[in-house]
Amino acid sequence: MNLEEKTLSKNVIFEGRIITVHEDEVLLPNGNIASREVVEHPGGVAVVAVDEENNIYMVRQFRYPFQKVLLEIPAGKLNYGEDPFACGVRELKEETGLTAETFDYLGSFMVSPGFCGEKIHIYLARGLSKGSMQLDPDEFLEVEKCPINELLAMIMDNQIEDAKTVIGVLKTFQLLNVDKKLS
Amino acid sequence: MNLEEKTLSKNVIFEGRIITVHEDEVLLPNGNIASREVVEHPGGVAVVAVDEENNIYMVRQFRYPFQKVLLEIPAGKLNYGEDPFACGVRELKEETGLTAETFDYLGSFMVSPGFCGEKIHIYLARGLSKGSMQLDPDEFLEVEKCPINELLAMIMDNQIEDAKTVIGVLKTFQLLNVDKKLS
Repeated sequence: MNLEEKTLSKNVIFEGRIITVHEDEVLLPNGNIASREVVEHPGGVAVVAVDEENNIYMVRQFRYPFQKVLLEIPAGKLNYGEDPFACGVRELKEETGLTAETFDYLGSFMVSPGFCGEKIHIYLARGLSKGSMQLDPDEFLEVEKCPINELLAMIMDNQIEDAKTVIGVLKTFQLLNVDKKLS
Repeated sequence: MNLEEKTLSKNVIFEGRIITVHEDEVLLPNGNIASREVVEHPGGVAVVAVDEENNIYMVRQFRYPFQKVLLEIPAGKLNYGEDPFACGVRELKEETGLTAETFDYLGSFMVSPGFCGEKIHIYLARGLSKGSMQLDPDEFLEVEKCPINELLAMIMDNQIEDAKTVIGVLKTFQLLNVDKKLS
């Protein structure tokens, strides 16, 4: 079956510092015309930093769209054209002060592919060393470390809802087979 | 530490059929002023429908922002004020023709809480019965079923990147302990 939609026109509505919004007219497989609202975003990188005791470094941050403080893995936006790995190394250092001996790629995810072009890459960082945070003067967050088993329980209990954190911790759990190691 | 940002002004930029975009001025904890680009979205519901042989029903759909066909769990947008459970039952039926004896709530996730208000709820559907699909005339998708172990391998190998599918399948795997059952 042909599933493809063909762009007929593109109307840019908003070019912000972070997102660009456009509304396109598309040709559907049945010949009908429909409109598509699209949000473009540079994407981001998140890091699951695990220490020798299977603790993960987390940050607490105010998330404006939900008007609340969330517990998340460290992450940041990609600069346009930036290498995701370089971004992950930088964001981990800035937000937690940590450097790592090894970074393993845990893959990427599309946050909401029906309307949004944002993709977030995730790395697993191990062999951690502590240093000092390098926060932007207008960035506010608190760092803490949590046992991976507690984070897993919080995820399954819906106490952690941030997509990158859910995906990063669940993939880490699969990869490290933490349950088997700890039992 | 006070992490909260206080809204000073709100400027609505775009009110589409699906999303609303606004740019707000906020007061930071240090007294500085910053701007926040926010995308509001009604949210959605996704369903992991698992049969007796641990196959999951999937749909293939063209995703316009990425210009490609993705393999995803069935899902749909919430109507404003709609009950997520009712939406899940409806979307499963419309997209796959399936009805289910039981629906278990797998929790919700925020797709990208830095700029977007979208939350997606996920249900696990079991005790499946087949019926006929009820697609909208302008909706195009293909249904297929995949063994959960294959989906897990595809997720860990980054062949499946859709956030709701990654989270739905990984949570189902944790909940059902499929690996232990199958081994």
